[in-house]
Amino acid sequence: MDGRLLVFSGNANVELASEIAADLNVNLGRALVGSFKNGETRVKIEDNVRGCDVFVVQPTCPPVNHHLMELLLMIDALRRASAARVTAVIPYYGYAKQEKKTAGREPISAKLVANLICTAGADRILTIDLHAPAIEGFFDVPVDHLQAAPLLAGYMSSLHIPDPVIVSPDAGGVGRANRFRERIGAGLAILAKQRPEPDTAEMLEMVGEVEGRTAIIVDDMISTGGTLIEAAAMLRERGAKEVYAVATHGVFSPDAVASIGQSRLVETIVTNTIPQHDNHQQARISVISVAPLFAEAIMRIHKDLSLSVLFS
Amino acid sequence: MDGRLLVFSGNANVELASEIAADLNVNLGRALVGSFKNGETRVKIEDNVRGCDVFVVQPTCPPVNHHLMELLLMIDALRRASAARVTAVIPYYGYAKQEKKTAGREPISAKLVANLICTAGADRILTIDLHAPAIEGFFDVPVDHLQAAPLLAGYMSSLHIPDPVIVSPDAGGVGRANRFRERIGAGLAILAKQRPEPDTAEMLEMVGEVEGRTAIIVDDMISTGGTLIEAAAMLRERGAKEVYAVATHGVFSPDAVASIGQSRLVETIVTNTIPQHDNHQQARISVISVAPLFAEAIMRIHKDLSLSVLFS
Amino acid sequence: MDGRLLVFSGNANVELASEIAADLNVNLGRALVGSFKNGETRVKIEDNVRGCDVFVVQPTCPPVNHHLMELLLMIDALRRASAARVTAVIPYYGYAKQEKKTAGREPISAKLVANLICTAGADRILTIDLHAPAIEGFFDVPVDHLQAAPLLAGYMSSLHIPDPVIVSPDAGGVGRANRFRERIGAGLAILAKQRPEPDTAEMLEMVGEVEGRTAIIVDDMISTGGTLIEAAAMLRERGAKEVYAVATHGVFSPDAVASIGQSRLVETIVTNTIPQHDNHQQARISVISVAPLFAEAIMRIHKDLSLSVLFS
Amino acid sequence: MDGRLLVFSGNANVELASEIAADLNVNLGRALVGSFKNGETRVKIEDNVRGCDVFVVQPTCPPVNHHLMELLLMIDALRRASAARVTAVIPYYGYAKQEKKTAGREPISAKLVANLICTAGADRILTIDLHAPAIEGFFDVPVDHLQAAPLLAGYMSSLHIPDPVIVSPDAGGVGRANRFRERIGAGLAILAKQRPEPDTAEMLEMVGEVEGRTAIIVDDMISTGGTLIEAAAMLRERGAKEVYAVATHGVFSPDAVASIGQSRLVETIVTNTIPQHDNHQQARISVISVAPLFAEAIMRIHKDLSLSVLFS
Amino acid sequence: MDGRLLVFSGNANVELASEIAADLNVNLGRALVGSFKNGETRVKIEDNVRGCDVFVVQPTCPPVNHHLMELLLMIDALRRASAARVTAVIPYYGYAKQEKKTAGREPISAKLVANLICTAGADRILTIDLHAPAIEGFFDVPVDHLQAAPLLAGYMSSLHIPDPVIVSPDAGGVGRANRFRERIGAGLAILAKQRPEPDTAEMLEMVGEVEGRTAIIVDDMISTGGTLIEAAAMLRERGAKEVYAVATHGVFSPDAVASIGQSRLVETIVTNTIPQHDNHQQARISVISVAPLFAEAIMRIHKDLSLSVLFS
Amino acid sequence: MDGRLLVFSGNANVELASEIAADLNVNLGRALVGSFKNGETRVKIEDNVRGCDVFVVQPTCPPVNHHLMELLLMIDALRRASAARVTAVIPYYGYAKQEKKTAGREPISAKLVANLICTAGADRILTIDLHAPAIEGFFDVPVDHLQAAPLLAGYMSSLHIPDPVIVSPDAGGVGRANRFRERIGAGLAILAKQRPEPDTAEMLEMVGEVEGRTAIIVDDMISTGGTLIEAAAMLRERGAKEVYAVATHGVFSPDAVASIGQSRLVETIVTNTIPQHDNHQQARISVISVAPLFAEAIMRIHKDLSLSVLFS
Repeated sequence: MDGRLLVFSGNANVELASEIAADLNVNLGRALVGSFKNGETRVKIEDNVRGCDVFVVQPTCPPVNHHLMELLLMIDALRRASAARVTAVIPYYGYAKQEKKTAGREPISAKLVANLICTAGADRILTIDLHAPAIEGFFDVPVDHLQAAPLLAGYMSSLHIPDPVIVSPDAGGVGRANRFRERIGAGLAILAKQRPEPDTAEMLEMVGEVEGRTAIIVDDMISTGGTLIEAAAMLRERGAKEVYAVATHGVFSPDAVASIGQSRLVETIVTNTIPQHDNHQQARISVISVAPLFAEAIMRIHKDLSLSVLFS
Repeated sequence: MDGRLLVFSGNANVELASEIAADLNVNLGRALVGSFKNGETRVKIEDNVRGCDVFVVQPTCPPVNHHLMELLLMIDALRRASAARVTAVIPYYGYAKQEKKTAGREPISAKLVANLICTAGADRILTIDLHAPAIEGFFDVPVDHLQAAPLLAGYMSSLHIPDPVIVSPDAGGVGRANRFRERIGAGLAILAKQRPEPDTAEMLEMVGEVEGRTAIIVDDMISTGGTLIEAAAMLRERGAKEVYAVATHGVFSPDAVASIGQSRLVETIVTNTIPQHDNHQQARISVISVAPLFAEAIMRIHKDLSLSVLFS
Repeated sequence: MDGRLLVFSGNANVELASEIAADLNVNLGRALVGSFKNGETRVKIEDNVRGCDVFVVQPTCPPVNHHLMELLLMIDALRRASAARVTAVIPYYGYAKQEKKTAGREPISAKLVANLICTAGADRILTIDLHAPAIEGFFDVPVDHLQAAPLLAGYMSSLHIPDPVIVSPDAGGVGRANRFRERIGAGLAILAKQRPEPDTAEMLEMVGEVEGRTAIIVDDMISTGGTLIEAAAMLRERGAKEVYAVATHGVFSPDAVASIGQSRLVETIVTNTIPQHDNHQQARISVISVAPLFAEAIMRIHKDLSLSVLFS
Repeated sequence: MDGRLLVFSGNANVELASEIAADLNVNLGRALVGSFKNGETRVKIEDNVRGCDVFVVQPTCPPVNHHLMELLLMIDALRRASAARVTAVIPYYGYAKQEKKTAGREPISAKLVANLICTAGADRILTIDLHAPAIEGFFDVPVDHLQAAPLLAGYMSSLHIPDPVIVSPDAGGVGRANRFRERIGAGLAILAKQRPEPDTAEMLEMVGEVEGRTAIIVDDMISTGGTLIEAAAMLRERGAKEVYAVATHGVFSPDAVASIGQSRLVETIVTNTIPQHDNHQQARISVISVAPLFAEAIMRIHKDLSLSVLFS
Repeated sequence: MDGRLLVFSGNANVELASEIAADLNVNLGRALVGSFKNGETRVKIEDNVRGCDVFVVQPTCPPVNHHLMELLLMIDALRRASAARVTAVIPYYGYAKQEKKTAGREPISAKLVANLICTAGADRILTIDLHAPAIEGFFDVPVDHLQAAPLLAGYMSSLHIPDPVIVSPDAGGVGRANRFRERIGAGLAILAKQRPEPDTAEMLEMVGEVEGRTAIIVDDMISTGGTLIEAAAMLRERGAKEVYAVATHGVFSPDAVASIGQSRLVETIVTNTIPQHDNHQQARISVISVAPLFAEAIMRIHKDLSLSVLFS
Repeated sequence: MDGRLLVFSGNANVELASEIAADLNVNLGRALVGSFKNGETRVKIEDNVRGCDVFVVQPTCPPVNHHLMELLLMIDALRRASAARVTAVIPYYGYAKQEKKTAGREPISAKLVANLICTAGADRILTIDLHAPAIEGFFDVPVDHLQAAPLLAGYMSSLHIPDPVIVSPDAGGVGRANRFRERIGAGLAILAKQRPEPDTAEMLEMVGEVEGRTAIIVDDMISTGGTLIEAAAMLRERGAKEVYAVATHGVFSPDAVASIGQSRLVETIVTNTIPQHDNHQQARISVISVAPLFAEAIMRIHKDLSLSVLFS
């Protein structure tokens, strides 16, 4: 693509955007992204963007509606300011878990969000580890969908854990867990809700063997941490030597970090798709940066190079 | 229209929605509109809406992004749940003041919001006193655009103020002020920023005569109240006997009510397009309900009757 | 909805369409759906459809492109002939397994198909057991998404199998299997591909316990039957007493039925979303009709009644 | 932008288009834009435009429907002929005063026109002094919105009028007048319709002081000139020494120029967004060319340079 | 369709609209359709149209751009005024002959017009004898496409002409002529331009036999009449006893009627899709009304009845 | 256009695509275009296409639905893989004869297909000799519409046939036949169905003179060959010395080639828009390649050069 490469950031994860820009050897584009006194989001792009190839870095992490609106208004402003191409770089895609109706008369919020982003005028999307891969199909513009698994599996492999077993914390995540273990070689176990008989109470069941092995719980995101901590407890009960947790997105609702700190998890590994804070070390939470991965992807998109090399 | 009439409310102004529903002799539709722990908005419509004529009452007042997203998700859910028609009832339209670019490289936020509402699936819009009437043209779906002026002018007339003068608090609002005075018969004065010479400091100037008369400042919304209070002070300085303020939308940012209470305004009249709170009496703020007006409009829309009668 | 209810059928599953029409007490709408000598699909609707509420029953089963094109042309003809509403009733949604890109530079075929159906002019969709539930979000028109699980679980329960274990034949299907066992109360086991070490050959692994129990493999569709037969063999090897298979969609590619006949499966239960043929009994394949379910759904859609009752 | 820069003109203002092209050092693109004998507009582009960056200069001045249709057909032809980008350069935007509904059941003609232009295939818009700035939001393609105020204020300043007062000829234009006076430093006065009492006849009222000063009436366009001439008369009555008029768009309906010639206006200044004719000197009408401004804007758009410099 | 049936008319053919309304036993809807002094079209619908089934009768005959714009603005106003359905009734479709590109870099004006009408918001189209039937496909909304042939053939048959021969005045119209003769039984002849050798001058050639027979020239429209008169002369030269002309649309550019009056045509039969004037008798032009046909079609569309009966 | 030029082929006419690529001095792009076992089409683009100018060669010849779906899926994959521009090169456009409704309640299949191609994401179309030229208007993206007439007329001229007569095999094709004869200089005759009296049986009639001359039947496509063979027989009966047939598209349904071999046609000339097979010589069928024409057009499109030179 011919135009100049520009990277802008909303307020959701300025650290990540800055790190990406630094890796790309460019300055972050100058823009005012704030609020008016009446609470309305205010956006003003301060650099000339005509004919440029613009990337807006903005995960839609909490406060999700606010960060989403910042993203939409930035896209609108860039498009009206004649940017040649606007790529929404969304390291964490809020509302991703609402990608289907579970009961009647619900929105399909993840689709609505996709429609809103396209309506605002995004020409393409760059993201990582969407909760459901079909969300890619919610867009008709091109989506480049990165994976954190190479980074995370590389880290886990570097620990040289003997005879590990990968654990999916619920039935819906077994596919993800199984693909992860293909990268490191390991056993598989599953935690699933069950009812011994219809109409009896639901209880957590484990399928597979963990006795005497190190368990690695694999998930895409950690919110309250409740499922994770419950899983860790059960795994220890069933004889697991140690329990690690690995996830791309560390959403961490209030109290989640404290709870993890008090849990039996040896180490919890997440990335910085969402900003991570200083008190993580006490909770044995490690953060791996996705900035080099995003920077490489952006450079390749800008230069029309294949991204295949980023998936292995 | 054939389908059953249903009225739903988001969390922005449940009191108004309830009052409208009561005036229409229907119950508010049952819906869960809340938040997940990760801060994402959660919507679940609990009544069957297939084939119904649904009205969603939701001003997009602060927290504006949050209330907007509730509105969008409710529309998405209702549409997917096969409502025959979804009307977004938006008594206060947030972002309305961002209806044009004032400097380069800004969004046209009011248009983006219109596009988002249509993308979500609204079939029509019902609103009142948009900051700029051209916002109606931001929509290609039908818009019914009510006016609070008959209510507000009726109230002012009932005070039997002798020889009043209508004051526009800025140059852009003179058209609105002038239309208002056509309803009550009055003089006109204008407050406008000016510079005595180019490159000198901007100062507030008054054009017109208020000496010995009662001034009524007319605006469409009150946010911080700063302009209003400054105007009231200047009007008194120029000899106005008393100063009233009239506006449709009482946005009232924090401290605004307290400031108005300490100001020289005799009375400030707003409507309940945005929820108004209990401490208003101390600040001499009166609230006129638009619920009967909206109820009448909804009934007429539902029954395919003309709304012209509501404008005089 | 006011218009007359009409049901049309393409050539994909006339038996099912006829059964649905019979359950609804209507005649199938008259339409010529055939081919010109040059191989182009030919459609001519022979009944007046102006103002009618039309349902077109057409699973996009093999030959999938041909059946899809029939569906699209029928929708186009009905829309141009002024039908008030056209619902595409798609009991089997071809291309559903291509709902995401697994490697770079692939189409998202399930999304393309959704876009084609909407472009042709469908106002709404009625379907059952989509391979991935997020496909519902590929549409912006309302989708009613039925489930065969109540029918299939009811049948399995009627067999009074003691201490059954539900088996997912692959890691991605564990969620579906787990939801199924909630309906009948059972254990859970999983078959998953694994590599003992990275870069070694992939092999099938079982997680969970089946020894001495009756295994019920649950999947959404059966195509070649290869996975299923391999799974049945492994389950018997691991000590399962008997093995059943349950799936909504019996795609059955050539030879699949013969292979199942020669397998160790005691019984294979599918529905008639796709036409099922006479030689099934020899292969111990049972077919449960979804026609009453679809007929009930169509009647409820037509009468604007809730469909919730169909999901329990 | 890479493609060659081309400028085409419809029949609305060939002089302006030629002047712009000359300033850009290019020839006007060759095109037949005429009529068939049955009155249909005929367009044929005679230069190859594949991959080019094409600007079509066409104000939609009277006969407005005819000039609009020429514009639409030229855009259609250019798009189908594979122009890389088509910018509609619309120095005067007809139907701009119909940007809202003033009574029920009217079109919003200015929005319809925006939709028509986008439907025809314009990629962007270049215009000047839209009657209402919100019209910019009627478009979702980028709009570059120039201002004639620097040109017009520069001219007025060059006259070195002592103690001028800027006059808005109606209540709706006070914002425009006030922004104009910021450029030259001046007093402010307003003419507004009023009713002394409700239900009495409407009469023109003046607010502000003009006695002994030179009045400069500022408006965006002059059509019949009626309002302007009435205003000039009233200003003189109220003691104004001299009266000037300044407007961007000289629409001048038949007889308007003659009336102005007979009026008390000392000088009337307009631009050539609409073609101006030879008899203007007798009516003391001066014409300032916007061609250099448009030429500079086109060159900057073509070269992806910021247009901010044109606004001061 | 439930809503009330309303018929409105622009200024293009009020006589036809009135006749249609009378045949339907309704009054023409009240609407102001005129011009502002600046030449802009002005539309104001004066009847309440909420929920109504509205038909706007407006052929886009000369002045074509003006009549088209009236149609577009009326549709826009009706849609914004909440009409339930708006049908554009276009008895003569201007720009129909520009339905393809004949040389490079031309618009496809008939498609542009179709896009404009849909953009304005027409829900369906009712028309008659489009110049090219594929224009129906330019619309994605339903089109009811009437034929004047039954009326015209009925008239010709009533003349009991012995051994007539149908003549196509050019090579492109032979299909139309041949379908016409199927209705009355007749011979066929063709007039076609030819060049005896490449690069020699084009001349008119006749194919077929007319000697001693009555020739009936069949075309879809008569504009200048030049082709027709030349054809009549040639047919007489080749021995035709008498020559009639039959066409649906009498566009009649200035002088056309006079020329036909002086020609050797015995009688020229057209319909009133375009207003026909009083001086026609002198030119031996007969006018057949399509009002009953349109009235019947509108009533059938409104009542959801089949239109097939109108085609035989 | 800046991006690299790439040519891909579906399975419809790999020979033609290869020939075009060879003429362009490029390799065919690597892509897997096949079928899954369940009959679904499978597409995987194997070359990096980011930022490239991609041409997909795929006539939609029989099996038409299958080839169309291949085309749509390839476009979807290319667009999602970030091709800068995707041109659908469609040498034969299936469903072209269904470009209008001939009876009520039919699809307009040629328009549906156009909509599907645009929905899939084609940026432009390159085709040749569409059955009806108005199909070009079915697209709103640019269409380059080539003609085989120069090639075919060149071939016929090279035979130096004395005093030929061009024959249209039906009334609708006379325009095409007449344009063809302009290229070689010749007489004209027409075959048309007629009824001597209304309600009698239809019979074939000839208009024009062929006695003692060589007849050249001109059509756009040959499917069953039935019309052609019947025409040849009638022409010989009426005294034609020899009969040739010329058509762009040799669809040749099964048995067509054999029938032509047994007919009285001296030679039948078609192009390779559709793959032609080896047994053609026995049937005296000659095939002229359009590859050089398409290669030249593609190169000109890629280099933004005018295509006018290809039409003479």
